[in-house]
Amino acid sequence: MPRVVVNVMPKPEILDPQGKAVLQALGRIGVTGASQVRQGKRFELDVDETVTETEIQAVAEKLLANTVIEDFEIVIEERDAEVAADEATGASAVADRGER
Amino acid sequence: MPRVVVNVMPKPEILDPQGKAVLQALGRIGVTGASQVRQGKRFELDVDETVTETEIQAVAEKLLANTVIEDFEIVIEERDAEVAADEATGASAVADRGER
Repeated sequence: MPRVVVNVMPKPEILDPQGKAVLQALGRIGVTGASQVRQGKRFELDVDETVTETEIQAVAEKLLANTVIEDFEIVIEERDAEVAADEATGASAVADRGER
Repeated sequence: MPRVVVNVMPKPEILDPQGKAVLQALGRIGVTGASQVRQGKRFELDVDETVTETEIQAVAEKLLANTVIEDFEIVIEERDAEVAADEATGASAVADRGER
């Protein structure tokens, strides 16, 4: 069960007010060695083997990124079944405890 | 000039309505092999050597993530000076062209 990560960031030439706000806040907490901060989105998709790279490319272009102002990067993370199962049961186990 | 990437994702047990919306949209464009989608934030910080890992940890905990409902991961990306310079000039060059 591979995990696909799609990172969506504003294009370099596009103004990034959120990034600027974080940069200023860094100064206020005494971190002065940062020259630039950019904020974007990160999507984690758990997919099965039927999903092709072409489909993932189309999903990124059509759904996840606005390609006029954003760039995106697709990273395929191979995970062994055990990790995938743990994460799935981890989430449902906690949910069960919440309901009891 | 290292680049620090901070990935902030909702904790597994936290409801992720944005991720659910993307999952449903995937079905509408014919991608049926996805079982879960989670949406989070990605921060890219360009910092100089004076910034310590402890400071980055504090920035992530205090500014970038709400640690009650979010987990974060810090990734240090070493970049050679040339790449860093290109990206910086790339952004300003495009901005110049825009002004002419």
